[in-house]
Amino acid sequence: MSEHLFLRACRREPVPRTPVWMMRQAGRYLPAYRATRAKAGSFLTLCRTPELACEVTLQPIDEYGFDAAILFSDILITLPPMGIDVTFPEAGPKIPSPVRTSAEIAQLGIPDPNDDLRYVMDAIRAIKVGLSGRVPLIGFAGAPLTMMTYAVEGGGSKDYAKTKAMLYGAPKDAHALLDKLAKTCTSYLEAQVTAGVDCVQIFDSWGGIVSPGDFREFPLRYAKRVIEGLRGSKTWMRGEGVPIIYFVNGCAPYLDDYASSGADVLGVDWRVGIDDVRRRVGDGVALQGNLDPGALFASPSEIRSRVADILARAGADGHIFNLGHGVLPETNPEHVRAMVTAVRELSAKA
Amino acid sequence: MSEHLFLRACRREPVPRTPVWMMRQAGRYLPAYRATRAKAGSFLTLCRTPELACEVTLQPIDEYGFDAAILFSDILITLPPMGIDVTFPEAGPKIPSPVRTSAEIAQLGIPDPNDDLRYVMDAIRAIKVGLSGRVPLIGFAGAPLTMMTYAVEGGGSKDYAKTKAMLYGAPKDAHALLDKLAKTCTSYLEAQVTAGVDCVQIFDSWGGIVSPGDFREFPLRYAKRVIEGLRGSKTWMRGEGVPIIYFVNGCAPYLDDYASSGADVLGVDWRVGIDDVRRRVGDGVALQGNLDPGALFASPSEIRSRVADILARAGADGHIFNLGHGVLPETNPEHVRAMVTAVRELSAKA
Repeated sequence: MSEHLFLRACRREPVPRTPVWMMRQAGRYLPAYRATRAKAGSFLTLCRTPELACEVTLQPIDEYGFDAAILFSDILITLPPMGIDVTFPEAGPKIPSPVRTSAEIAQLGIPDPNDDLRYVMDAIRAIKVGLSGRVPLIGFAGAPLTMMTYAVEGGGSKDYAKTKAMLYGAPKDAHALLDKLAKTCTSYLEAQVTAGVDCVQIFDSWGGIVSPGDFREFPLRYAKRVIEGLRGSKTWMRGEGVPIIYFVNGCAPYLDDYASSGADVLGVDWRVGIDDVRRRVGDGVALQGNLDPGALFASPSEIRSRVADILARAGADGHIFNLGHGVLPETNPEHVRAMVTAVRELSAKA
Repeated sequence: MSEHLFLRACRREPVPRTPVWMMRQAGRYLPAYRATRAKAGSFLTLCRTPELACEVTLQPIDEYGFDAAILFSDILITLPPMGIDVTFPEAGPKIPSPVRTSAEIAQLGIPDPNDDLRYVMDAIRAIKVGLSGRVPLIGFAGAPLTMMTYAVEGGGSKDYAKTKAMLYGAPKDAHALLDKLAKTCTSYLEAQVTAGVDCVQIFDSWGGIVSPGDFREFPLRYAKRVIEGLRGSKTWMRGEGVPIIYFVNGCAPYLDDYASSGADVLGVDWRVGIDDVRRRVGDGVALQGNLDPGALFASPSEIRSRVADILARAGADGHIFNLGHGVLPETNPEHVRAMVTAVRELSAKA
């Protein structure tokens, strides 16, 4: 497995062509996913039923031959075992009782992932069997700052006013909450590695809402703590230790600090040139990205030309092709195929 | 008036201290605003009644002594006279019949601002009388790409999928729509100058949702067209021509191109260091920004230290202090005062 294209690219080893996968590749754009989702009845049932989570994880691998599978789950599922209820209506996740006071933060627990989130570990084991070595499996978790935004806002937000009221107005509370979220994230990812994932990605989807100084103080600091915790743990080392991907959506303002996260791979959203990112972060990390998910609305020939542009900017090695964020539900599945084909053909070394 | 602090800073002339104003300074954080808003009954009535728009425009000047007033209005009010209805419920603006097809785009008109938006021009004249030369008045409009997102999505959006479906999937339609929005924006700002504003700001609040290449192709191209149109118009020249501010929320990825907009002043959001922006855009433009609106939740002493940091990074001349986006409704008015006091004291030249 360690010789697989995707894992070699994570380690910046030379590869015969650029590997490709897609954030949210097991998702609503895919007819097979929608069928399984309907069978499950609810989104949470899909997440919590290992055989169904396994089924949707494998669908895009069978359909497109992506070079990595990613565990089907949701970053928010670690919140209920911490003591924060979450519901998943169609309009997006809701936390009916958001966490806003130091007393509420003090009451939060750190889940035991092998107990409270056992269904995730069962899903990982089932997926590994289902994949039978075809491609590596990526596990994931939400980064502390991103998890904080959901816990504090009670859902998505336009301006993150409540999160910022805590970060800047009650920084002790913010650090106490981030500390618990970091501990939860670390032990959850450790358990995923023990269960069999070959790589982990830490999603800081809302890490990009702060100034560069606050990025160092909050999202980066706690992402680093998770990454250091993982590397220092005994259970971490499977072979040479599985690669760690850190993804900040909206990373452009933080490029001077991004590489200091300690991750093996940095995720790059679509709003910045991946060549610019390479110049600023140096050659010590692999990069993953960065086609605009919305660019899949373009014609297949336009998609091919955008893929070519990104491949040229990223260079042949140390690059994993991906979208710059999750694929949009409205995407035409045949346009996904056009993207995958273009990556395979255009990145192949003679 | 042309010797006023704010206008001199726009022209990058030496100033005895850094001028300060605040995006959305006439807004819900201010008790006086909420009183007038209640009296008006609805948001649209407030926009459309010159004496009430004048009243709320002057409130923050009286309260804090900001160095510029900004016309109280909303970027979306140009849509109804184009043929696109807008409503303003509490949850945010809604366009009940979004524009999605070439036939719908073909039907849109270009408003005559002195007729269809006469109440804005009346408000400007009333505000100029009310200000009686105390500080300059800033007029404004939404940039073409930003207006397109509202017209196409039907309101705010998380992923701008419908906008991107048009930009990349039907680029001819996108260009046709952007062309009409640019013409509307240009003539609307021209009329505001004729009515008496001393400066204009073009808000590209959602100009930051695209890749750097698409930024040049869509938001920047049409903002440039507006700016060139304004500079080329006969009515433009009052004195030496009023300064033009172009503000892209999330500008960090586009700094190589930002200065080519042709604006006199570039707005800078809070997610990027203003010193980084200065290095990348050169000395040919003034910069406006860039305190995180959420930083006003911090203590007054922390606010003061963040103001000091921004002043040091921005340098003494060619800088207009502002937030990096609109002030949040939950903001404590006394914290706004702490910010204004800090700017005045800390930027004063000996």
